[in-house]
Amino acid sequence: MVKTYIKENEERFLEELFSLIRIPSISAFAEHKNDMVLCAKRWRELLLEAGADKAEIMETAGNPVVFAEKIVDKSAKTILVYGHYDVMPVEPLELWKTPPFEPQVIDNHIFARGADDDKGQAFMQLKAFEYLVKTSQLPCNVKFIIEGGEEIGSPGLEEFCAKNRELLAADVILVSDTSMLGADMPSLTNGLRGLAYWQIEVTGPNRDLHSGHFGGAVPNPINELCKILAQVVDNEGKITIPKFYDKVVPLSTQEREMIAQIPFDLEKYKQSIDIQDITGEVGYSTLERNSCRPAFDICGIWGGFTGEGSKTVIPSKAFAKVSCRLVADQNHEEISKLFCDYIYSIAPKCVKINVIEMHGGEAYYCPTDHFAYSAAEKGFEKAFGKKPISVRRGGSIPIIPTLEKVLGIKSILMGFGLESNAIHSPNENFPLDIFYKGIEAIVEFYKEL
Amino acid sequence: MVKTYIKENEERFLEELFSLIRIPSISAFAEHKNDMVLCAKRWRELLLEAGADKAEIMETAGNPVVFAEKIVDKSAKTILVYGHYDVMPVEPLELWKTPPFEPQVIDNHIFARGADDDKGQAFMQLKAFEYLVKTSQLPCNVKFIIEGGEEIGSPGLEEFCAKNRELLAADVILVSDTSMLGADMPSLTNGLRGLAYWQIEVTGPNRDLHSGHFGGAVPNPINELCKILAQVVDNEGKITIPKFYDKVVPLSTQEREMIAQIPFDLEKYKQSIDIQDITGEVGYSTLERNSCRPAFDICGIWGGFTGEGSKTVIPSKAFAKVSCRLVADQNHEEISKLFCDYIYSIAPKCVKINVIEMHGGEAYYCPTDHFAYSAAEKGFEKAFGKKPISVRRGGSIPIIPTLEKVLGIKSILMGFGLESNAIHSPNENFPLDIFYKGIEAIVEFYKEL
Repeated sequence: MVKTYIKENEERFLEELFSLIRIPSISAFAEHKNDMVLCAKRWRELLLEAGADKAEIMETAGNPVVFAEKIVDKSAKTILVYGHYDVMPVEPLELWKTPPFEPQVIDNHIFARGADDDKGQAFMQLKAFEYLVKTSQLPCNVKFIIEGGEEIGSPGLEEFCAKNRELLAADVILVSDTSMLGADMPSLTNGLRGLAYWQIEVTGPNRDLHSGHFGGAVPNPINELCKILAQVVDNEGKITIPKFYDKVVPLSTQEREMIAQIPFDLEKYKQSIDIQDITGEVGYSTLERNSCRPAFDICGIWGGFTGEGSKTVIPSKAFAKVSCRLVADQNHEEISKLFCDYIYSIAPKCVKINVIEMHGGEAYYCPTDHFAYSAAEKGFEKAFGKKPISVRRGGSIPIIPTLEKVLGIKSILMGFGLESNAIHSPNENFPLDIFYKGIEAIVEFYKEL
Repeated sequence: MVKTYIKENEERFLEELFSLIRIPSISAFAEHKNDMVLCAKRWRELLLEAGADKAEIMETAGNPVVFAEKIVDKSAKTILVYGHYDVMPVEPLELWKTPPFEPQVIDNHIFARGADDDKGQAFMQLKAFEYLVKTSQLPCNVKFIIEGGEEIGSPGLEEFCAKNRELLAADVILVSDTSMLGADMPSLTNGLRGLAYWQIEVTGPNRDLHSGHFGGAVPNPINELCKILAQVVDNEGKITIPKFYDKVVPLSTQEREMIAQIPFDLEKYKQSIDIQDITGEVGYSTLERNSCRPAFDICGIWGGFTGEGSKTVIPSKAFAKVSCRLVADQNHEEISKLFCDYIYSIAPKCVKINVIEMHGGEAYYCPTDHFAYSAAEKGFEKAFGKKPISVRRGGSIPIIPTLEKVLGIKSILMGFGLESNAIHSPNENFPLDIFYKGIEAIVEFYKEL
C-alpha cells in the first residue's frame, strides 16, 4: 500500500525535499547561477536513488536540465514527467514569517519558497515513481525532464527539446505544477492562459529636474507613463489594443454552464484577499475573468523619488513591467507586436519611449477524452474520493504549449496546489495531507494506464 | 575694492565654503540629524569670524536655526539675511561625476551638493557682510537667520519666527536662493510659485497575488493608481481638480508682454534637457507655464516587482509622491483639501486609498517699487554691467511668504543661480565668476541702501 510506504518513509521524504528547497534557485537573478547547478545536481542524485536507470545533467542555452529515465519495456507506453527546479524571487522579504529558504513544518504545512511551485509538486512525481519502482509495480516507461527556467519563460528549453526529440519521445507528458479548486474539490486543469510580458521605459529630460523651475512646461515621464498605461484597459474592462481580441475563441455556452456549476463564494473570495470589491471585464463572471479571458496587469512600476519625505523633482525616467494573460487562440508573439505598436502609437511625441519584449507563451488546451486525461481523473478519484472537475486555469506554463508544438505530445496537468499555498508570494506553503494524497493519486494514475 | 578683497582671500573663502559642503546636511533623511547640528555649528563659527557681534544656535521644533547679528546703529535700517544650510538628497548617486559631498573646482565651477542651493549662495551673503565689516563700510544693521529645513518645508520655522518677532525685526529680508535668467542676463525674482505635496497609497489585495490566478478579476493597485493619476491633468494641460483655478490671479496683459520680451530660445531650451518637445497648458508660453501658472507633477512612483527580469504579480500596494506648483492667490491648504477630496472621489471602490498631506507653501509676490528692490537692481547693475530683468520664477521657497505673514516683511530675492547649476540634480555646481560677481552685487546693494 502506497499509504504505508509514505508513512514509513515520511521523514526521509521531507528531508529530501528540504534539501532541494534549501538551494535558493531563483532563476530571475543572475547571481543565483551557481545555485541552479547545485539544484540540478541534487535532482540527479534523487532521481538515481528513486530508481532511474540513468540520470544526467544536460546543458541548454539557459540553465541545465536534468534528464532521467527508467525503461521497463520498449513496447510499453512512455510517460514523460516534466517539472522545474527554479523558483520565483522572494521579495518582499519582510512579509515572510519564516526564512523562505529554510523549510519548516508548521501546523502540518511546509513553509518555504518552492514548497508548492514546483519543488514540492515535482517531488511528489518523484516519490510516486520511487514507490512503483521499489515495489516492482511500474507498468510503463518513465522519463523525467526537470528544467531550471520555468519562472522566466524556459529560455533554451524549446531548442533543447527540438534537438532531443528522440530522447524525449513519449506518449504523454505528466505535469504537477497547477492547483485544484480546493482541498475538498479535486480538479484537473485542461486549459491554461498564455502570457506576454514587457518592460516599458519612458524618458523625459536627460536628467532629473527641479519641478519648480520646469514643472508645467516640460514632459514628466511618470505623468506620461501613467497616461499611457491608463489607456490600455477601458472603463468596461476591455483591453484597447487594436486587434487584441481577434483570435480569442469565444467561451461556448456549454463551458460557461460548466463554470457556473463550480462552487464559488464571492464574499469568501473577496474576504480571503481582503478586497472591497472585484473588478474586471463587463459581461463575465469572476471565474471566467480569471481563467478564460485575457487580462492586463502592471506587475511593477518605478521612477523618481521614492525615499522618505518629499523631493520636488521631475525625474528623467519612469519604468513599468506589464503583462497580458492570453487565451486560446491568441499567439503571444503576434500580441506582443500589437502591444508594442499600440504603446508607440499612443505615446506622446514629447517623450522617448522604449518597449522591451520580455518572455511570453501560448495558451494551452487538452481535450477531456484523451486516454491519459481519463487515467488522471481516476487517479484523483481514488486518492481524494471524488471525481475531479475539469477546469481551465488562469496561470501560464508557457513550456506546456511549447512542448506540444515541438514534441507533438499533449500534457496532463495533474496539479495539487491550493490558492492558499501562496505561490509567487510571501509564506508559500504546502499542506502535508494533500502532499501525501497527491503521491497516491499519481500512483493510481500509473495503475490506470 | 571688493574685487581685490575677494582675490586676496579666495583660497580661504573656498576652504570655508567647502567646510560647510562637506557636512551632508540632508534634511529629508532622519539619519542626518547629527549633520544638521554640525552644519549649524560651523555656520555659527563662520558668522562670528566674519564679524557678527553675536551668533547663536537656537532650537526649533525642526532642525536648529543659526541666528547672528551686527548692530551698528539702532536708528539705521536693518537687513535680515535668510539662507538655509540643509540640502536635497543626492540620488541617483551613480550619475554624479564627483562625490556630492567632496567639493571640487573643475573648469572654474564648484561641483558638490549645495554648491548653489543654498550653501553657496548663502555663503556669498556672508562674505559680502564680512567685507563690509572688515573695511568698516557696513551702512546698516544686519541680522542672519540660517535654517535647516527649507528643502522639507521649513518645519518649526514659522513657530520660531512667531516667538522671536522682536529678535528678527528688520526693514527687509535679503535672500540669495533663486536663479538668474542667464550668466549674461542678470535678473531679479519678484514672484515665486507655491507648493502642495502629497503621498498617495493604493491598496488592492492584502498580499501580492499570482497574476495568472487572479489577473482580470481583482483590482491591481498599480493599474488603478495610473488611472487615477492620469485623470488629474486633461488633454489641454489643465488640472481637473474642481475649484482648483478659482483663486488664480490671471496674468495681466502687461506682465505677459514683459515675459514675451525675455530672450528665450526654445530650441536651445529643448536641447539643454534633451527633450523631443515641450508640453503644458494650452494657451500659455513656456516661460508662463514654468513660472506664472500652476502645474501637477508626479515626483515619484513605486509598486510591485522592480528587480531584474520579470515577475508575474499583482502587488498589494502602489505608491506615488505628487505635487502641485501653485501661484498667487492660491492657498496651499485649501488646494490640498481640494486635491484630497478629488482623489478620494475619483478612486474606484474596489481599492483602498490613502492620501497623506506632506508639506506646502504659498506663492509670493514683491512689488518692483519697494526701496530694497531698487537697491538690489542697482547692485546687480554695478556688478554685472546690466540692469536686471524682473521675473516671476517657478520654484517655491515656502518660507518667504511665511516670513511675510509672520514678520510682516517683504523679501528681496537676490539670487545668483543658473539653470545649468543643476540644483536638486546630480552634479550640482556653481561657476566661480558668478560666485565672485554675486558677492560684489550684494556689497553694492548695501551701499545703495
